[in-house]
Amino acid sequence: MRIALLQADPTVGDLAGNAARLLALVHQAVEAGASVAVSTELGITGYPPRDLLMSPEFVRAAYEKARSIDPAIPTLVGTPVPGQDDDTAPANGVLGVGEGLRGKVVALKQLLPTYDVFDEARYFRPGSRPGLVRGAGGLDLGITVCEDAWQAAGLTPMDYGVDPVAQLATFVRQDATLSATVNLSASPFHQSKVHDRVTVARTAAERLGMPFLLANQVGGNDDLVFDGSSVAAWPDGTVVLAPAWSEGVLTVDLDDPAACVWTPSAAADALHLGSNEVRVLDPGESPRSQNSAEDLADAVVTGLADYCRKSGLQRIVLGLSGGIDSAVAACVAAEALGPSAVHGLALPSRHSSQHSRDDARWTATSLGMRFSELHLDALHAPAEGLLDEVLRTGHAVAGENLQARLRALLVMGHANAEGAMAIATGNKSELAQGYCTLYGDMAGGYAPLGDLWKMDVYALAEVFNARAEARGQPAPVNASTMTKPPSAELAPDQVDEDTLPPYPVLDRILRAHIEEGLDHDAIVARGEDATVVADVLARMGRNEHKRWQMPPAPRVSVRAFGQGWRMPLAGRHDWRD
Amino acid sequence: MRIALLQADPTVGDLAGNAARLLALVHQAVEAGASVAVSTELGITGYPPRDLLMSPEFVRAAYEKARSIDPAIPTLVGTPVPGQDDDTAPANGVLGVGEGLRGKVVALKQLLPTYDVFDEARYFRPGSRPGLVRGAGGLDLGITVCEDAWQAAGLTPMDYGVDPVAQLATFVRQDATLSATVNLSASPFHQSKVHDRVTVARTAAERLGMPFLLANQVGGNDDLVFDGSSVAAWPDGTVVLAPAWSEGVLTVDLDDPAACVWTPSAAADALHLGSNEVRVLDPGESPRSQNSAEDLADAVVTGLADYCRKSGLQRIVLGLSGGIDSAVAACVAAEALGPSAVHGLALPSRHSSQHSRDDARWTATSLGMRFSELHLDALHAPAEGLLDEVLRTGHAVAGENLQARLRALLVMGHANAEGAMAIATGNKSELAQGYCTLYGDMAGGYAPLGDLWKMDVYALAEVFNARAEARGQPAPVNASTMTKPPSAELAPDQVDEDTLPPYPVLDRILRAHIEEGLDHDAIVARGEDATVVADVLARMGRNEHKRWQMPPAPRVSVRAFGQGWRMPLAGRHDWRD
Repeated sequence: MRIALLQADPTVGDLAGNAARLLALVHQAVEAGASVAVSTELGITGYPPRDLLMSPEFVRAAYEKARSIDPAIPTLVGTPVPGQDDDTAPANGVLGVGEGLRGKVVALKQLLPTYDVFDEARYFRPGSRPGLVRGAGGLDLGITVCEDAWQAAGLTPMDYGVDPVAQLATFVRQDATLSATVNLSASPFHQSKVHDRVTVARTAAERLGMPFLLANQVGGNDDLVFDGSSVAAWPDGTVVLAPAWSEGVLTVDLDDPAACVWTPSAAADALHLGSNEVRVLDPGESPRSQNSAEDLADAVVTGLADYCRKSGLQRIVLGLSGGIDSAVAACVAAEALGPSAVHGLALPSRHSSQHSRDDARWTATSLGMRFSELHLDALHAPAEGLLDEVLRTGHAVAGENLQARLRALLVMGHANAEGAMAIATGNKSELAQGYCTLYGDMAGGYAPLGDLWKMDVYALAEVFNARAEARGQPAPVNASTMTKPPSAELAPDQVDEDTLPPYPVLDRILRAHIEEGLDHDAIVARGEDATVVADVLARMGRNEHKRWQMPPAPRVSVRAFGQGWRMPLAGRHDWRD
Repeated sequence: MRIALLQADPTVGDLAGNAARLLALVHQAVEAGASVAVSTELGITGYPPRDLLMSPEFVRAAYEKARSIDPAIPTLVGTPVPGQDDDTAPANGVLGVGEGLRGKVVALKQLLPTYDVFDEARYFRPGSRPGLVRGAGGLDLGITVCEDAWQAAGLTPMDYGVDPVAQLATFVRQDATLSATVNLSASPFHQSKVHDRVTVARTAAERLGMPFLLANQVGGNDDLVFDGSSVAAWPDGTVVLAPAWSEGVLTVDLDDPAACVWTPSAAADALHLGSNEVRVLDPGESPRSQNSAEDLADAVVTGLADYCRKSGLQRIVLGLSGGIDSAVAACVAAEALGPSAVHGLALPSRHSSQHSRDDARWTATSLGMRFSELHLDALHAPAEGLLDEVLRTGHAVAGENLQARLRALLVMGHANAEGAMAIATGNKSELAQGYCTLYGDMAGGYAPLGDLWKMDVYALAEVFNARAEARGQPAPVNASTMTKPPSAELAPDQVDEDTLPPYPVLDRILRAHIEEGLDHDAIVARGEDATVVADVLARMGRNEHKRWQMPPAPRVSVRAFGQGWRMPLAGRHDWRD
């Protein structure tokens, strides 16, 4: 028996488009010999629909659209399920459509994650029993929705007091007709996520004594990026892993892991990055064989590509300083939209070095994107003239920011004139320190590197260089860009280390604080210098205002339960006294 | 017997400061003859603490700080109550401190609002029974926390299936020793909120057959504004209403409504706007006697004043165009921080009319604030020169935005140099239509008019003019500013009505859509022109990106359950096909 996992890339809110996408994937599943198909969580709305779910009209429209799907084989579709009236919250459910299922609700999600990027208790009422469908393509299947399966593996941040996998196991002991249990997921990417997802699937398969099949969403929606990597696990620990960063169908042969087939989506706009191959893991084998930086590169490219496609944006403009961040951002944009859709602007000022100008031009030329150079002097001098008095008497930062804002003015002028989106090129390390200019280099509709630490940006430069060389093209990030001391070049001979600790140190401290939640003393106990840690944390507090005005960035380096960008809006005062 | 309602203006996260503020208010309550004091909801942390509550260390610190308060009379303090371990969510509770209470938890909030601006299911586990304290200053009291009392009045957007007021009423029938029931609230302002709050208090007093006393937070925290207006109601419908927009203590004599006393806070930085008088309402008398525009003016002044004070901002810079929005924003800033802390910049371009320049100068001069005029030409021409090619060949909006961004550059230059915050002057009507420039007139750390419809801005101009005249000063908003056709002055002879419908029409359509959730057909059924409605809604969709990059604004015109600025982040596609 073959079950197809529809690893789709839906667009939040595009009910008709998502339904059409699901039907097309079911068609491919039929050709691959599947007798049942399973969508991802909330496959009809895309995940996360957020406050769209506050509209009863939207919930009803989604539910009716899901019910209207008429697939060639029985299919389980993730959909919001309306409450009994408009005052009752919907459930996060699963609908059976196609032969023998006829639009019946077969599962309601029980565990509603409400932490980090999740807010499901805001939107949904929980289900109260395990999902189940009988006679779907001749099979009886257990059904879980995403978080439902994570409690059993101990990978949720709290104990829900309910374990849907254990409930199903009890049920199986009483009535042994189930062939497999499926899971409809929308499980966002972070760097160790594939490992966790495989652990969840193996744990559930072992507890249930049957294959456990998890269909995960792929692609980007707003600031969330999903890697796909749908997974099937058997009770002995054998695992079949679908590719990451690609839309398609994993057709799982319940009796033969080696016979599982990956069919890439035939949609014209389908996402296809990465290896595009199924991997079979032996019992006990870890899934962490891929290069982590390759994965990060695919994540940020996916995020930007889907953000643009789903928002109807076809062109990108960015400033190229000759530094590592804008060079890597240009690589991301060129891979996401194709180099001909990207326009790089070098905007040197009197403080810019010749090597920076050369490096900027090199990156654009190597990538094959459009390149322009406009010298800032013609604007810089009159702006300083107009602001002469305050620049002489006020804080020095005003003059430094002036250059960054003049550049933003020119980037946005090009973006507006060309109907393109400007992207911001900052990374998470400098943004967390406020080492950036509001309405200057922070300007842009999207910040592709905004959730990457500075050291990750260096690693991505290596990835994009290697990819270019593998295509027989010149490496877009010059060796000099990689090795020169990072500098904002906003004042003569300025380097970042005048203000910040060296990036390897800064990244260690920020990761400990943001990803692990450690405070000053705990970080110092790891061997960091107490003054440096105090300075870093103080800069974080002072720059909260800036962080909240950041354009969206794909979430890629946030570990499970980490705070990421969702820093408290309030809390300007230290509460530890 | 006298119970003091501590109508405090806490700062989110400032545990030590909030505890000191509470103690000082208790001291004033003792002087007013109170034998028990009641804080607002989460009085120790301030409301809303948002994701600070995700930190178990913060929750423990808050709880311990609340327990450490040692007041002269028994006091009920709102505080998060830690779960049994770090994996268990805290409760939104009430602690008894002072004589006879000794740090015991006496209530846990049962109804956790999770809609519109509220997200309490994200943070808290609910309580399961009504709160109660015995022997507090000789009294037994029922205790509820904010939303707990709203179900009984039918003023929640959903049926929680639990009614803490009904639970208390049952308890009272069994054990009639309660003298009163209190409610610790943090209930944000909107235009009909006082009416709702009085209805809640009257309903509870009637159902319980005893006085019902509600202590409400006052002041601004981030984007929420609280009006105070604490209330005491008796079973016969008599009501005592504390002033809005003022910190202080309402000491309620349970036996004599006419003997209730308002004591303004003696803190040096205390908020004191509005009438500062207690009002006594007869049974059946409506609380809506205040001028609604006066209330809105106080709300936006409070929002900006507290945002600055709590963020440590002491100076404001803004651009003055000579139009109604920037004139009213200047009035708000001058009233919030005092005119000497505000710097108005007129930044005329070649498209600016002489009357606009005159009006800008008039506003600044009348208010007594610092005023500078810098002509944009010196920058405008070189910027157009640098962008010459794209301005000639690209979308016309690029040229219009250029001026707005040059102005932002100069405003931010002054703000950075002077250590001030720039404020954005846009209103909700134009922002909802995208009739504004990203990184241009939208730049600023705070948008005081960002939640006001355009017609509200006109009403506020009248209020500030009347206030100035009452002080014997010239009216800051010129008659010509009020009567001339609104214009962005970004192109020759441009007026807003070239692009937008007349503001009275636009506001009606936007209110119907945003506040009431009506769609195109429902709005047309009210008599609006179908094409106009379609255009307005289409502009809303296209400008979602801009709305999400808005600086915070006080929430003032959002009606209960309205969406306000919390529009869905996703949903770029129409889901109604």
